[in-house]
Parts: sequence; structure tokens; C-alpha cells
Amino acid sequence: MPSRGLFLNVGVNSTGYHGNSWLAPGAAWDRFVSFDHYLEVAELARAGGFAAVFLSDHPALQRAAESRPLHSLDPLVLFTALAARVPDIGFVITASSSYNSPYNLARRLASLDHISGGRVIWNVVSSFNPDIAANFGAGPLPGRAQRYRRAAEFVEVVKALWSSWDRTAGPAPEALGEPLWTDATARPIDHHGEFFDIRGPLNVPIGPQGRPLIAQAGASAAGIDLAGEHADLVYAALLGKDAARAYRDQVRERAAAHGRDPSSFRLLPGLVPIVADTTEQALRRHEQLNGHPDETALLRAFADRHGLPFDPDAVLLPELFVSEADQQGPIGFTRSLHDLVATETLTLRQLARRVDGGHRLVLGTAEAVAEQILDWWRDGVVDGYTVQPPTLPHDLRTFVRDVIPLLRAAGALSAGYPESTVRQRFALPQPLPVG
Amino acid sequence: MPSRGLFLNVGVNSTGYHGNSWLAPGAAWDRFVSFDHYLEVAELARAGGFAAVFLSDHPALQRAAESRPLHSLDPLVLFTALAARVPDIGFVITASSSYNSPYNLARRLASLDHISGGRVIWNVVSSFNPDIAANFGAGPLPGRAQRYRRAAEFVEVVKALWSSWDRTAGPAPEALGEPLWTDATARPIDHHGEFFDIRGPLNVPIGPQGRPLIAQAGASAAGIDLAGEHADLVYAALLGKDAARAYRDQVRERAAAHGRDPSSFRLLPGLVPIVADTTEQALRRHEQLNGHPDETALLRAFADRHGLPFDPDAVLLPELFVSEADQQGPIGFTRSLHDLVATETLTLRQLARRVDGGHRLVLGTAEAVAEQILDWWRDGVVDGYTVQPPTLPHDLRTFVRDVIPLLRAAGALSAGYPESTVRQRFALPQPLPVG
Repeated sequence: MPSRGLFLNVGVNSTGYHGNSWLAPGAAWDRFVSFDHYLEVAELARAGGFAAVFLSDHPALQRAAESRPLHSLDPLVLFTALAARVPDIGFVITASSSYNSPYNLARRLASLDHISGGRVIWNVVSSFNPDIAANFGAGPLPGRAQRYRRAAEFVEVVKALWSSWDRTAGPAPEALGEPLWTDATARPIDHHGEFFDIRGPLNVPIGPQGRPLIAQAGASAAGIDLAGEHADLVYAALLGKDAARAYRDQVRERAAAHGRDPSSFRLLPGLVPIVADTTEQALRRHEQLNGHPDETALLRAFADRHGLPFDPDAVLLPELFVSEADQQGPIGFTRSLHDLVATETLTLRQLARRVDGGHRLVLGTAEAVAEQILDWWRDGVVDGYTVQPPTLPHDLRTFVRDVIPLLRAAGALSAGYPESTVRQRFALPQPLPVG
Repeated sequence: MPSRGLFLNVGVNSTGYHGNSWLAPGAAWDRFVSFDHYLEVAELARAGGFAAVFLSDHPALQRAAESRPLHSLDPLVLFTALAARVPDIGFVITASSSYNSPYNLARRLASLDHISGGRVIWNVVSSFNPDIAANFGAGPLPGRAQRYRRAAEFVEVVKALWSSWDRTAGPAPEALGEPLWTDATARPIDHHGEFFDIRGPLNVPIGPQGRPLIAQAGASAAGIDLAGEHADLVYAALLGKDAARAYRDQVRERAAAHGRDPSSFRLLPGLVPIVADTTEQALRRHEQLNGHPDETALLRAFADRHGLPFDPDAVLLPELFVSEADQQGPIGFTRSLHDLVATETLTLRQLARRVDGGHRLVLGTAEAVAEQILDWWRDGVVDGYTVQPPTLPHDLRTFVRDVIPLLRAAGALSAGYPESTVRQRFALPQPLPVG
């Protein structure tokens, strides 16, 4: 067993990870704009010992109107309000490097890091959806290469701004008229790059954890490189243990290539838990969540979505799952299916129970789900998971009630929050002096 | 006496309105980044029955290092955290139309309006400081005319986005697969203007007060026009009653010209209170706050700052105060001095006690301060004030303890918060159906 703990983050978007989650029994469908809903979810997550809550984001109203709106309240605003109410837990805030300006975003995240006592994690995304681009100008969505070049420069600038003004708690000057800061403690960054020209310094001092953590979900070569260079936390769609190990090694290789300690990031792939009293009940719930009356309907829909022949018990070949290097949408979900069937022998019937909405599905009794969670972690393949409950708050409540105690009994998850900042919690290096 | 109440907002930037306020006795100088400091201030403001707290903003570290940093934590983030902790009170959030994008800002403010239960007021500024421009690109600060054209288009777009998605609390669809919204309830805005191309709709539904309120501090012709067209609350530097009446009538005229009811905005000029047990003590405190040992030093510094001859008891002529229509900095502070000496006969000795940091100074015992506050309001010249305590929390505590009870006893200010949204509190028209 690893000497360090298991790290669990939890996705808290909208009414849940699942498109049909708005119809959960006993919960108002429009709870996706209710602060009390998110407060209940965050308090559940804290009771469960989760390291952080996570909001993915797209600044556009999705077109699929029969699904719950996955992205509505702004992550920075919603998590700031939650940080003021819920102690201890961290906040993974998604914000686009394509549709923000570095000074504003660096300042807003640094402000929340002060207010929350060092609980901010910025999830950098470059935004792949043309519907987003249409809310930010007349031009088309830039290509992947340009978006990733901008993302890399954006992160560099934000990190420079976060370390540009030392002034933290310290002695006051002796008298009026003496400076509260000097050129040595508040330094312009004078950045001039391909995308940004920014003088600085930031008008917010260095915060309680030096600077906020950075999360990244790179799956393309450019994304993995960005994660290797900058990410403290890595989120990814990894469906099989061998594929996960290979991915981890790729990020480590890119980290080393950028001169970082290859162990200085934490890998927390997505995980969708469906927990029930029996395996049969969990299988039925999986079908129901997807709006299907039985397994056959589920398998047919899965085959249709991925362009597979409907032959439930024939072995699937990896060639059936092809991602294009220049595709506009995220590469990760297609690639993870490819990598899973390349490393395990699976039929359609089996594959359809290994993935839900793109992420790893773990399905069964609480004991079976806990064992699948512990398996990869014990082997050192992952540091933990980003749990995506299909419906909120229902599936999170079940998970905290039934699975968390098993993870604690196994010695993987401690009760309480002994460390105050997320940097300390994830045992990550401290690059800056703190106040 | 007016049938409606007196509205008081309060400025809560940093350690106080005054540059030397970091040195207040018994308070840590670096409280400008302490959430607990702002929480104490907001709770004091709520106890005093203030309608809203207000943060001005510049996204740049100021150059005057011997003064407290006036702008550090981001107003949107700080007020979101406070909204989650302090009930009832409203939040005037300054955000620049020159250095934000309309979709992000509309969404963030709408998100907070949901979370806070309709307590958001957006203070639109166009940003006049070249130090800000240098944090947002290589280009120079655009001229006033261009910034105001952008501001007007920005506000139009934000209002359109705020009313683009009807969906609020309502019945759920009958079954899975039915739409949660339609083209009739979520409408693209398809805006194409000089500065912005934005499709929409917003991904946040209409909120509890229809849309957030808009505040504006226009002093130039373009600023007054923008206030007349869009502002629900108007903040301005108005130093004399006759000048204030003239300004109010100008905004009313511009509102009518834009087809609005001329009574559909509330005028809340700035007001700096210095309250002491005796008038003499208040005069000495005014000198001390400004770092001067006596009145003569105060008068000399005032004369130097405004380029006036040092002749304490000679009557000042309005020609001494000239603002240029194309000046880069704010026109309001120079114009308000001009208008005051044009409508009242004042010497340097008198003028230096009528203004502090650009806004109207009211100085004396609690009774004298309360009377000056009530005077303009009783005459219908203003709807209230934006109080700027010289030091925080000290001067706000004094004001709430000594002045607020007198305003309540006069029947001007009610105890408690009978209305839940700021739109209701300010008795402003409701332009949209609410959920």
C-alpha cells in the first residue's frame, strides 16, 4: 500500500454528471441554479473527506435541450460563494485560456486564494466548442495548435503575476510617508509574447499557499506537454489500468523534459460510480440512468454512438476507435476507448459497462466499487480519482455513506483535514515563500 | 419630508477611503487582504441599515507606495464571498467595460444574482488609467470617446444577455427526452456591433430581480448620457446643493431623451464623514488623517494640490478650476470644485473643509453630520449618499453608532430590510418577468 493517501476530488456540475440527472426523484429539476443545492453537495463532499470539488465549464448554453444544462452558474463565482461557507475542502475552478485575460484571471484566482486560505486550483482549458467562440467574437474557434500555444503562454504569465508582489503579512512602516512596498517587493513582469503584453505587477500579494495549484486534462500531445510542464493535478479519461500506467508515464516524461521532478504532479482520472445493494441492481440503474428499458437497448445505443456493429459478444478491435490529430473536439474520450480495447480483450457487452459519458464506470456493490477504486491506487498507477456522481446529490450521498467508510477502513483515506492548503494536502512542492 | 426613505451605500475599499488609513490604531496595516476585515465591515454596514456596500476598482497596482493599496482583492470575488456570509445587504461591484468581455461578465454577475437572491449592482467604469491598459495589452489606453462608445455597447449587450434565457423555476417536463428549453425560452441575441459580436443566449436563466441593477458615475457629457440611458444608481462627486440639483436635472434630461421615466434612477453622491465629539476635534482629525500637524499645513497642501494661491481668506473664483473635455483622468472631481465655488462664495479656508479626496466632506458632531445628510435629501436633491469612511472599520463603526440612530429617529432610515432584492429596495421598475 502506498505511504501517501488516496486523493478524491468530486465533480459537482449541475444536477449531476448524467444528462438525465435532472429527473432524480425527490429533487427539483431546476436545482442547477440553486445555491442551496451546491451547498448541500459541497458539505456532503467535505463530510466524505474529498480533497476538492470540481466544476468543468463551457461558457455557452448547450444545444442538447433534453439534457440538464451542464454548465450554468460561473465556476469562479459559485466556488467563491461555497468557499465562504464550507471550510477545508479545495476548489478546482475551470477557466478558459482562450476566453479570459491573464491579468483579470490571475487576480481573481489570487483573491479567492487569500479569501479561502489557500484552497484554489485552476483547471486550465483551451475550449474546443464553436458555440463558445460565437459568444466571444466574430472569428472562428482557433485551431488546436494555436489554442495550446496561447494556453501555455497564458499559464506562464499567470504564474509570473502570482509571484510578482511579495508583500504579505509583515511589519508596518514606521511612519506615514514611508513606502509600503518597493521595486524589490512589487516587480513588473514586462511580458511580451505571441499573445500577451502585460506589465504587472499583480495588485494582489502572494497568498497563503504561494500560488494556487494548476490542473490540466491534456489528452492530445500538446495537452500532455502542457500538463507535464505546468500541472499539479492531472485529470484524464483513463479506462484501463495498463492504459492509465502508460499515460502516467507519458506525463512524467514530459515533466522531466521540462526540468520538473516527474513525481511532482498527482494523477486523478475520472470515475463514475454506480453503487447498489446488488450487482444486478447496479446494472439496471445504469440502464435506467441512460433512459433504456434493458441491457439490449443500452448496448444498441452504445454501438450507435460509437459507430460499432451491433454484435454484443464479438471481441472489439482497437481500429474501431480512431481519433484524428486535428479533430476539433476533445481527443481524450476516443483515445481512451481505443487504448482500453488495445490492452484488454473486450466485447461490446463488456465495454458498455466500463465507461459512462466518456469516463471509467465502476459499477456494483459498495465493496466492489471500493475494491476497484483501491486497485489502481495500490499499484501506484494513480494518486486518486475525480469522482463524477451520475446524479446530485443522490449518488454522492450514497457514495459517502457506503463507499467512503470502506476506503477509510482500508487506511487509504483519512478522516478530517490535517493540512490547511490544497498544496499541503496534495503534498506538492512549494515554489514561493509564503506570508 | 420625502415619502420614500434615505438610501445609504458605503464604500468598503481596502483600509478605508483615506490614503493614510492603513495606520489606524488597533488594526493591522495589511488588513486590505484579510477576508475577516471585510466581513467585519460588511456586518457593520448591515447593522447600520446600509442599502449596499461598494467597491471601486482599478486592475493595477497603484504607483503611490506610501498610500494603502486602494484596489487589491477583485470586487466580484470579494463580494461573492461576502454575499455568501452576510444577508440582506446589496453589492455594488465595479467592473470595467474596457477590460472585460461581455459574455463572461454578464454570466458572472447573473450567477451572483442567483446566489445572493437578487443583491447585485454592476458599477460600469471605462477605466482611465494608463497603468491599467499596460496590464491588458501593448496598445495605449483608448481615448475617452472610444471608451464610452464601447461602454454603451457593452451595457446594451449585457442587458440583452441577461434577458436571453427565460427559464426560471417552473414545472419539469413530463418525461425524459422532452426539451427543458426551446427557441422561444432561450433566444440568441445575435449582436453585431462596433466592438462586439456575440451570439448568446446566456447560459444562466433570468434571476430573482429580473436583471442586476446598473450603477454609473458619469461626470463628462458622455458619462452623463450613459447614466441617463442605463443607470439605476448614479454615483457622483457633488460638493454643493445647487450643483447637485443641476447635475440631477442633467441626468433626468438625458434619461428622458432616451425614453426613460426621468425618476427611474437614484442619485447617491459621495460623502466623507468625519464625526467627533466636538467640531474642534473633528477639524483636528481631518488634519491628522491628511498627515498635517495643523490647519495651516492642511491649507497649504490643498492649495498646492489644486494649483491655488495660498491666501486662506480670499474668495476663490471658479476660473481657478478648469477641466479639459479631452483630459484622460476623471472629469468629475475638477468639475465638482468648479461648480461649488461657482454657486457658493468660499475662501480657501472654507473650501478645504468641504471636500476630501474629491468627495463632499461633512465634518463635526454626529448631530451636525446627520443634519447635513438630511438637508439635501429633504429637499429632494439626492436620494441618499455613498458614504466613504476615511478609515475602516473605525469610522464606519463610529458612523453606525452615532449617526445612524439620528437618521432613524428622523424617520429617514428604517431598521431592517423589508425588501429582499436591491431592485425592490431602491423602488426601481422591474423590466423583466422574474422566476
